[in-house]
Amino acid sequence: MRADVQRFSLKDPSDVSGLREAIDKGVIDPANIVAIIGKTHGNGLVNDYTRGYLTLCLSQLIGARMGVAAETVRKRVPFVFSGGVEGVLSAHYVVFTVDRDTQPAGDGKSLAVGVALTAELSPPDIGRKRQIDATAEGVRQAMANAGIQNPDDVHFVQVKGPAFTLEDIVAAGTSTCATDNPGKLMGFGRAASALGVAKALGEIPANQATENAVLRNFQAYSSVASVSAGVEVRVNEIIVVGLSPAWSGPLTIAHRRMQDALDIGSVTALARDLGLSPEPQVPAAQARRIRAAFVKCEAQRDGTIRGRPHTMLNDGDIDQQRHIRGAVGAIVAAVLNDTALFVSGGAEHQGPDGGGLIAIIAEQA
Amino acid sequence: MRADVQRFSLKDPSDVSGLREAIDKGVIDPANIVAIIGKTHGNGLVNDYTRGYLTLCLSQLIGARMGVAAETVRKRVPFVFSGGVEGVLSAHYVVFTVDRDTQPAGDGKSLAVGVALTAELSPPDIGRKRQIDATAEGVRQAMANAGIQNPDDVHFVQVKGPAFTLEDIVAAGTSTCATDNPGKLMGFGRAASALGVAKALGEIPANQATENAVLRNFQAYSSVASVSAGVEVRVNEIIVVGLSPAWSGPLTIAHRRMQDALDIGSVTALARDLGLSPEPQVPAAQARRIRAAFVKCEAQRDGTIRGRPHTMLNDGDIDQQRHIRGAVGAIVAAVLNDTALFVSGGAEHQGPDGGGLIAIIAEQA
Amino acid sequence: MRADVQRFSLKDPSDVSGLREAIDKGVIDPANIVAIIGKTHGNGLVNDYTRGYLTLCLSQLIGARMGVAAETVRKRVPFVFSGGVEGVLSAHYVVFTVDRDTQPAGDGKSLAVGVALTAELSPPDIGRKRQIDATAEGVRQAMANAGIQNPDDVHFVQVKGPAFTLEDIVAAGTSTCATDNPGKLMGFGRAASALGVAKALGEIPANQATENAVLRNFQAYSSVASVSAGVEVRVNEIIVVGLSPAWSGPLTIAHRRMQDALDIGSVTALARDLGLSPEPQVPAAQARRIRAAFVKCEAQRDGTIRGRPHTMLNDGDIDQQRHIRGAVGAIVAAVLNDTALFVSGGAEHQGPDGGGLIAIIAEQA
Amino acid sequence: MRADVQRFSLKDPSDVSGLREAIDKGVIDPANIVAIIGKTHGNGLVNDYTRGYLTLCLSQLIGARMGVAAETVRKRVPFVFSGGVEGVLSAHYVVFTVDRDTQPAGDGKSLAVGVALTAELSPPDIGRKRQIDATAEGVRQAMANAGIQNPDDVHFVQVKGPAFTLEDIVAAGTSTCATDNPGKLMGFGRAASALGVAKALGEIPANQATENAVLRNFQAYSSVASVSAGVEVRVNEIIVVGLSPAWSGPLTIAHRRMQDALDIGSVTALARDLGLSPEPQVPAAQARRIRAAFVKCEAQRDGTIRGRPHTMLNDGDIDQQRHIRGAVGAIVAAVLNDTALFVSGGAEHQGPDGGGLIAIIAEQA
Repeated sequence: MRADVQRFSLKDPSDVSGLREAIDKGVIDPANIVAIIGKTHGNGLVNDYTRGYLTLCLSQLIGARMGVAAETVRKRVPFVFSGGVEGVLSAHYVVFTVDRDTQPAGDGKSLAVGVALTAELSPPDIGRKRQIDATAEGVRQAMANAGIQNPDDVHFVQVKGPAFTLEDIVAAGTSTCATDNPGKLMGFGRAASALGVAKALGEIPANQATENAVLRNFQAYSSVASVSAGVEVRVNEIIVVGLSPAWSGPLTIAHRRMQDALDIGSVTALARDLGLSPEPQVPAAQARRIRAAFVKCEAQRDGTIRGRPHTMLNDGDIDQQRHIRGAVGAIVAAVLNDTALFVSGGAEHQGPDGGGLIAIIAEQA
Repeated sequence: MRADVQRFSLKDPSDVSGLREAIDKGVIDPANIVAIIGKTHGNGLVNDYTRGYLTLCLSQLIGARMGVAAETVRKRVPFVFSGGVEGVLSAHYVVFTVDRDTQPAGDGKSLAVGVALTAELSPPDIGRKRQIDATAEGVRQAMANAGIQNPDDVHFVQVKGPAFTLEDIVAAGTSTCATDNPGKLMGFGRAASALGVAKALGEIPANQATENAVLRNFQAYSSVASVSAGVEVRVNEIIVVGLSPAWSGPLTIAHRRMQDALDIGSVTALARDLGLSPEPQVPAAQARRIRAAFVKCEAQRDGTIRGRPHTMLNDGDIDQQRHIRGAVGAIVAAVLNDTALFVSGGAEHQGPDGGGLIAIIAEQA
Repeated sequence: MRADVQRFSLKDPSDVSGLREAIDKGVIDPANIVAIIGKTHGNGLVNDYTRGYLTLCLSQLIGARMGVAAETVRKRVPFVFSGGVEGVLSAHYVVFTVDRDTQPAGDGKSLAVGVALTAELSPPDIGRKRQIDATAEGVRQAMANAGIQNPDDVHFVQVKGPAFTLEDIVAAGTSTCATDNPGKLMGFGRAASALGVAKALGEIPANQATENAVLRNFQAYSSVASVSAGVEVRVNEIIVVGLSPAWSGPLTIAHRRMQDALDIGSVTALARDLGLSPEPQVPAAQARRIRAAFVKCEAQRDGTIRGRPHTMLNDGDIDQQRHIRGAVGAIVAAVLNDTALFVSGGAEHQGPDGGGLIAIIAEQA
Repeated sequence: MRADVQRFSLKDPSDVSGLREAIDKGVIDPANIVAIIGKTHGNGLVNDYTRGYLTLCLSQLIGARMGVAAETVRKRVPFVFSGGVEGVLSAHYVVFTVDRDTQPAGDGKSLAVGVALTAELSPPDIGRKRQIDATAEGVRQAMANAGIQNPDDVHFVQVKGPAFTLEDIVAAGTSTCATDNPGKLMGFGRAASALGVAKALGEIPANQATENAVLRNFQAYSSVASVSAGVEVRVNEIIVVGLSPAWSGPLTIAHRRMQDALDIGSVTALARDLGLSPEPQVPAAQARRIRAAFVKCEAQRDGTIRGRPHTMLNDGDIDQQRHIRGAVGAIVAAVLNDTALFVSGGAEHQGPDGGGLIAIIAEQA
């Protein structure tokens, strides 16, 4: 098997011209698409409809080219979009394809991708044991699909889970849900899903991956989980990306934890892990080897960064997630010389408290 | 003469506890204060009242300690506050003091500071020849006050000019003003003032420092000008900071242009100019030598950064200045290991188009 | 001919369940749909993609039910969506259908609808003579299509014209456009289109419907024009709604100017024109007769309302259009006992300066 | 005793020119000022510093004119400012004075005012029994100070309680507080204070004024309580306004509940209670009799208004309080022909769930 990863610019949330051209030129076989991850133009919060808009347009394109219904595509392929391209960031989407007919060359590990979907989750499931366990089980399935045995070979697990509007929450019964605040429920969902990933990969003991730990024990975290939530899905979609000797091809992946929002050292270290030269910025010629980068980050909960106060959690005008994405996204963009980054806020249990993580897919040096 | 520069954290816009303590302990003689520059908690746009609030509180403190009216202090000392501490940035203010009794040690140049104020400017003056010329004349006066003869020894010129609300503009007659849009008039003012600085320092030929060039010829710019605007002043306040053999003390200053928002290389180069080690981040122990850093930046006017689109100029929810401050501020903070940075948007004619500039005051290595 | 107007709630911008059900139950023949007007969930500014999202979903639904491509539907049917349901407002869309086989009963005038599209407009056309004249010609065509001879029988003219992102403007050449500010160019387009309507209906002398009057002579205005702009169209789409003896059916329409944002008297007067009892609020049973209401409004340009200052034009956090829609929308909603109102900001030359207009389609008493 | 109420326009949060002129002309004796209530220009959320700014400026003015320290004034006089003048609203402040030497004329009741302050409240007290009981006790004291025996004669109770930033909450220990979300803690504080008022006035049985009812039992509410929170106070400041035969003067007060955001009928009914003619708008000549109006409102918790969905609780760009203030403020302004209204969001237990209340002070007819 051989995985490929291609990134396309997004002029507006309905702009699928990049993938269309790639399909029409024969560069991408739509039947090989296993997942699409991207950043869209919205605010990344509950009332962000750009994620659903792009999902619709891409699934219709793929369906049309394959001669199947868009719904069929959406049931098979996870579309994971995070809204919010603050500051220097640039809207884009990354298409993962798998060619099952290619044999491994036998000379080491290559990029491997596996996908799984959980059953439907309803508002009362969010942030609860059911979401933790369903996610853990999904990660194990996706690893199996990717032919990855060793959890250490997993470098990135993207989960996209459901978000619910107030109307949904009211319909489900507010008292049955972890919270009646739509934005906060998104946080519960990200947290429980991340703990599910950590549990599946053995990053934390199983007895820490509990409902009690959700949004409480921030020392329990995954270093490879990246979780988003959106109103356009009703299941947890899980994409496991790692390395496997059963796969061939020129691509690789690596990841690092980020200790806090200023941890530029982890970004440069990761770049060097991949044979890039970030001194202080990856040269443009090298930067072309980067196929995709995924970052999770969050505003430090105690209101400070390295001892100085920040204002992100007190701001009534700009949401904390928009602040932190713009900040951490800019740091990573400056090092990688690349602004088409998947930077997502809300890093509950995804990397160290107040920090997050970064994973990069690149052509091998 | 000897200049000192001290930076204080700002818990809220009325928090003058840092300076109060420094005065009360004898660390700062209020009579020696010549300028205060800082970042406050507001949005940095027309309806940001945190700048005026801090100005009032600081001028009252200084007035009380000196036994003079706060108004008297405000007429003598420029208070230059820029609102907006997006992302990782931290609100603070920097107090410049000058001790006129200290003799230079004779072994090189030290930090030198000079201040001047223009006459009052009314809405129709903004963005016009009168503002350009008044600023240029003010820069020459401030250089003289600082004992700086060579324009190459000027590393930072902070100008704070007036902003006007719609009510002011209507009262002045909208047709007499460069624009009737309060936010846009702030841009005209920053532009004309920057051209005035460039003219005074010989950075551009005098025939380029014209009304016609304002917001049109962006190749005409100053590499040391940093201009803000706020409703709380009615004159252009000008602070020239540079190096002079007539001054003594352990502080120095250096500056660099930033070519665009991702120009991390200029930040690290400047850090090295000052003997710091930004590989990739100035270590905490070294970072303590930094006394203040000033950054100007802007969203690139053509809607792209290094060929990829950004959304800052199309965003109806978050102003472009808030976006770009958060992004460039984070890059500089990550390199300097310091979040109490003066990062100001609206860099019209302040550094290259789409870029900006950075100046750092630090203890000599 | 017989016009019908049906209104459907919009849960999210892809929610076309209301129209789908109406078609599937035979209540609406999709071939009879001539226009759809609605309010979506976005911010109503340049980066509002909810308008295009709903346009896509509705045109696909109609196309699927008619067996034609969605593009074909979009070329024939104007989809006019304004983003922004601030405050009490509720997202919805109004479907206009025309049954050409019904003969008039001969006992008076009934609701009449006509549609026309201009040629494509490019960024340099916006706010210019070409847009004024093309709109005027389009209004005449749409009146002819509606069988309305007398301009006094025209009660509402909805125009949806193109908006352009910064990227479009740069591609067209910024110096060739009325402004390089995307949001401001939307205003130019609304203004020129409104003057085109006023010219066609004889509301102003032809010599006032000039490029010079655009955003300058606010005494030149139309009392029935409602103009929106969005990135998802490239022509001016024109919908004329009025009364004609050539049409039958139970629906009627009336309109009133609003002198300023507090002109509740015009709202109650219009309600009484239609036989409703707004003392102070139309009773729920009566309110069911309302099929649609269209409101244009704007923040008064001099920064005051009835002598007291407002803050809408100085606010860097919330756009003036979002403020005024929320305010005027609430006043109209409180009188009509109905929150599913089309309330649109940016009323340049649409009603008196600082005011706007309101039109209501209702079942005859 | 005789109470007077005067309202002054606020150009910016430091604009105390109105009161200064009134004092300097002898219209207001600063020693008679017992409370000031107003609306300032900020967002009305945690990071709104305009409230503190105006408090500082007014207290310094009063202190200077009385020859006492501003701190002394602030300890004696409640300054209750709510940020946010969305839509048509206009920033202003209302000065309550009491002349203790005037004897009642004996011919009925006149406006009566009484003030009380609780002890300091810390973050763990907010939303808890301690805040409920301290507020109830304060209301009883303020009634006594106002010479009001009958709770039915109390028409408006303004409470201003403390808000805390994240830093404060962290310092107090997040686990000891009702919530670690600064904005949400403001809601807890408003809720507990409102229940305290309801308890003191006998509007609800004492056994409903419990910690358990806070933000849970919304059928327990006060019809006269208006509660704000801000970082600039540390106690609950309580102002009771009502009618008493022990007072003289031409002013009166009345109030009404508002059932929901569209309840314009209660506004017109209240206007008629005061002898005004709101058909549909109080004429300008009559409107001059209005001295102050106070409104509380909130976005309906179930996401609908009269059966149609609203978006206020799902909006990541504009806070729900800004939405609802703009909407309900506009309705009241349109009826009263007056935009200088104190409209405050966050009506937890202040009026019916989803609704609120309105009180008007006016010259007797």
